Amino acid sequence: MNDVLERLAELLEQRKTADPQTSYVAKLYSKGMDAVLKKVGEEAAETILAAKDGDPQKVIYETADLWFHCMVMLAQAGLKPQDVLDELARREGLSGIAEKASRKEK
Amino acid sequence: MNDVLERLAELLEQRKTADPQTSYVAKLYSKGMDAVLKKVGEEAAETILAAKDGDPQKVIYETADLWFHCMVMLAQAGLKPQDVLDELARREGLSGIAEKASRKEK
Amino acid sequence: MNDVLERLAELLEQRKTADPQTSYVAKLYSKGMDAVLKKVGEEAAETILAAKDGDPQKVIYETADLWFHCMVMLAQAGLKPQDVLDELARREGLSGIAEKASRKEK
Amino acid sequence: MNDVLERLAELLEQRKTADPQTSYVAKLYSKGMDAVLKKVGEEAAETILAAKDGDPQKVIYETADLWFHCMVMLAQAGLKPQDVLDELARREGLSGIAEKASRKEK
Repeated sequence: MNDVLERLAELLEQRKTADPQTSYVAKLYSKGMDAVLKKVGEEAAETILAAKDGDPQKVIYETADLWFHCMVMLAQAGLKPQDVLDELARREGLSGIAEKASRKEK
Repeated sequence: MNDVLERLAELLEQRKTADPQTSYVAKLYSKGMDAVLKKVGEEAAETILAAKDGDPQKVIYETADLWFHCMVMLAQAGLKPQDVLDELARREGLSGIAEKASRKEK
Repeated sequence: MNDVLERLAELLEQRKTADPQTSYVAKLYSKGMDAVLKKVGEEAAETILAAKDGDPQKVIYETADLWFHCMVMLAQAGLKPQDVLDELARREGLSGIAEKASRKEK
Repeated sequence: MNDVLERLAELLEQRKTADPQTSYVAKLYSKGMDAVLKKVGEEAAETILAAKDGDPQKVIYETADLWFHCMVMLAQAGLKPQDVLDELARREGLSGIAEKASRKEK
């Protein structure tokens, strides 16, 4: 598809040594994981509200915000979006109901 | 990076005409947008719990679940993950603080 | 138990005509229901994080924040906490499993 | 106001020794805190959706669900709804903006 997520992941790595005074992400890192996770919760709520409103631009905007903050969380945890994409690819072969069933076993 | 999201988006399109009895996604579509959004809220909570626990496999698994259900929501809304990636790419040039400032204006 | 919720509900009614410059609640009302609901999502995330940490003071604090913003939402919707308590009382006679079953039917 | 929350808290204590096969709450306890917190996240999402729809009965129903699962979480953490009400009463004297300011200091 493209490499936006990969470039963004590299950027998020670089921001680990950036100045919290000038970088939003560096500031978020400096506040710790809880601050990042509060943003994940907040952006999930905003995504839900946007989808209810049905305004495509808002839906795109808020989903981007949610995925972005998930990526900050992944970076904070030493993980990469590729790990998430690999997991999605792994599931791809499974049919929906089979996947659901396999999930129940977790 | 790769085309997992694109392939998954195609799969989610195909599932729009699948049998809700045999497809998890078709079943979710048939329940309507609210059911999809409840899953987004639930998976956001699970992602937060996994990140607090700090177990990498759980973090990857739950983030995949969250992104997957966001993609079902996008499909339901007639949108594609590429729309979200385009929005993330658009922001990429913006520095963190500048981006934060531009967001305030929305 | 006590009448804290009732007094708080009266206060929230009074704040509907207060100055958004000097009242947090009046400011929240003036931003509209979406702003209140974003706070509900954010405070739910903070409650989850506090409960995971297991610090009793934080759990109490964040749950109070969550219930408070639910009450602002109720006030905005023309409802009262008593309506929620009445619903909880109505369910009280039902055993857990019976209640769960009755919910499924909704 | 009334003592619904107190009676409910007593019921939730009793359910700690109930059979998970016949009690919804006992079953939830047996799954552990994470399962309770997932429900808090899910019910918060449902409350947000109900408030967006603006159907008073749904708003009351989902807020009751959210508060109920918060109370299960409190019981699991050895706390009582009275602790939350005490915290709300403590704040009551504070004006909105003053309260907001005092929160920032936490």
